[in-house]
Amino acid sequence: VSDIGEFELIARLAAVHAAGPRAPVDVGIGDDAAVLDLKGKTVWTVDVQVDHVHFERGWLSAEDIGFRAHAAATSDVYAMRAHPVAALASYVLPTGNAGLAEALARGARESARVHGAPIVGGNLSRGAELTITTTVLGSSARPLLRVGARVGDGLYASGPVGHAALGLRALASSRTDASLEPFVARWRRPSLPIDADIDAASAGIDVSDGLARDLEHLLERGRLGAILDADALVDEDMKRGAALLGLEPLELALGGGEDYVLLCSSPEPMAGFARIGEVIEGEGFFVRDHGGTVQRMPTRGHEHRF
Amino acid sequence: VSDIGEFELIARLAAVHAAGPRAPVDVGIGDDAAVLDLKGKTVWTVDVQVDHVHFERGWLSAEDIGFRAHAAATSDVYAMRAHPVAALASYVLPTGNAGLAEALARGARESARVHGAPIVGGNLSRGAELTITTTVLGSSARPLLRVGARVGDGLYASGPVGHAALGLRALASSRTDASLEPFVARWRRPSLPIDADIDAASAGIDVSDGLARDLEHLLERGRLGAILDADALVDEDMKRGAALLGLEPLELALGGGEDYVLLCSSPEPMAGFARIGEVIEGEGFFVRDHGGTVQRMPTRGHEHRF
Repeated sequence: VSDIGEFELIARLAAVHAAGPRAPVDVGIGDDAAVLDLKGKTVWTVDVQVDHVHFERGWLSAEDIGFRAHAAATSDVYAMRAHPVAALASYVLPTGNAGLAEALARGARESARVHGAPIVGGNLSRGAELTITTTVLGSSARPLLRVGARVGDGLYASGPVGHAALGLRALASSRTDASLEPFVARWRRPSLPIDADIDAASAGIDVSDGLARDLEHLLERGRLGAILDADALVDEDMKRGAALLGLEPLELALGGGEDYVLLCSSPEPMAGFARIGEVIEGEGFFVRDHGGTVQRMPTRGHEHRF
Repeated sequence: VSDIGEFELIARLAAVHAAGPRAPVDVGIGDDAAVLDLKGKTVWTVDVQVDHVHFERGWLSAEDIGFRAHAAATSDVYAMRAHPVAALASYVLPTGNAGLAEALARGARESARVHGAPIVGGNLSRGAELTITTTVLGSSARPLLRVGARVGDGLYASGPVGHAALGLRALASSRTDASLEPFVARWRRPSLPIDADIDAASAGIDVSDGLARDLEHLLERGRLGAILDADALVDEDMKRGAALLGLEPLELALGGGEDYVLLCSSPEPMAGFARIGEVIEGEGFFVRDHGGTVQRMPTRGHEHRF
């Protein structure tokens, strides 16, 4: 399928998406821009996945890459307490990769089936490095911001943290073991908190760069502090999986990103969430271990350097 | 300014944009997503500029690259008969390029001052190739589509075509001459049709891939034909400039892209536009030369191959 023209490839990608969920648009793929009727507050985000930076081709299928790229961008919409409405996908492709583009589109369609935000347009360009940029629009009656946590609020996570990072380390080390498969699957195909009820949350963020790093935002960079419970962060599966790779599970839970779970502060219990700690006065964050010992933790997690 | 962290760089870019035009947003740079109140029909587009594909660093300043990337994306919004509202900019940067990112942001801010659509968020990632992805939202009471031209409609252009292509060829050939400077400037900093009145238009598209290529879309890939007037496509400056580089001016006008002028069909005269031809029955497009001779033209223009 190599050496086909841009317009032919656009037609093929449009066919992939035509078989997916319907998007609420007046005009979709094929014009200068998509046309939508949006009501209320609109939230809008963009995210990128770059070959050799965010993934290696050997670690997942092209469909997985498309799924991840769409889910990672859509995660920001859930973190704003919004419903995903639609997405645009921009692909930069090395030559000879028309088939890859179709597989990426199928993966994005899969994610849209589960998470919402069907692809309604995009852009195609040649380039040396496979780069997938996804922009997503969502609608919210009451957007949830990163700012708003208060002292005494509980800290709640919609799912386990560090699992995707463990899966990624398994892939990078080429270590295979049946017990590591769920972690690898978690990294390849993030599962967004589609049914999470976050009405009560005072602030929220998705865990993409690592819990410690993302928590910093909820703590408004030092205005507030937090204490986390190690027992709530690391389960038995995680301990066993980390041991197989010689890794420290708490390190993974605090520093590993790309889980795309929701981290919220809330003055009330949050059904379906794990309570992992609470917001305290002062700055810095602390972890209380099984025996009750409290230790101050350095910030860590993923940050690009430029 | 090399080796600074992502969050520090985000703060610097936010400062660049804070000095620019105000965007109509509730939440801008710094949360998981931007928050906007949108009314009526929303148009939404994404465009990418990749180093060594769309430009070479030696051909223009980093500010120019930022300006072009923003203008090229915003052009699609004008082509939909919409007002640009806001933009998100996603930068993939090789390491050591924090200063470059700030210059890109200044360039985008300049374009936003002229064309609208201030930057209200974005994304930063490392990567091997400088890649700038811009997504723009616009608002329209009555979006103009590519489909809608009728036999007998005039074809109108909001500005000269082929000028940016001539400028690009001058840069690529390293040929310098004062008379080529306006063409180079046209390529480096596209000027969008901010005051164009396109109420009467029946269909429209921006000329990004080349007149012949983009016209195909207005002609709905063969449902309609067109006849263009060579005299309306090539002016004296263009003839002189093309001659300096040994190029055929009509070829540049038909095949050269990146002018970002508006091409419209309309049953009525369009003030401020040049009438360059008309929509005819049948398929294919023809050019009438100075002497009245009509010649059938092949489609040409830019199309990525995959």
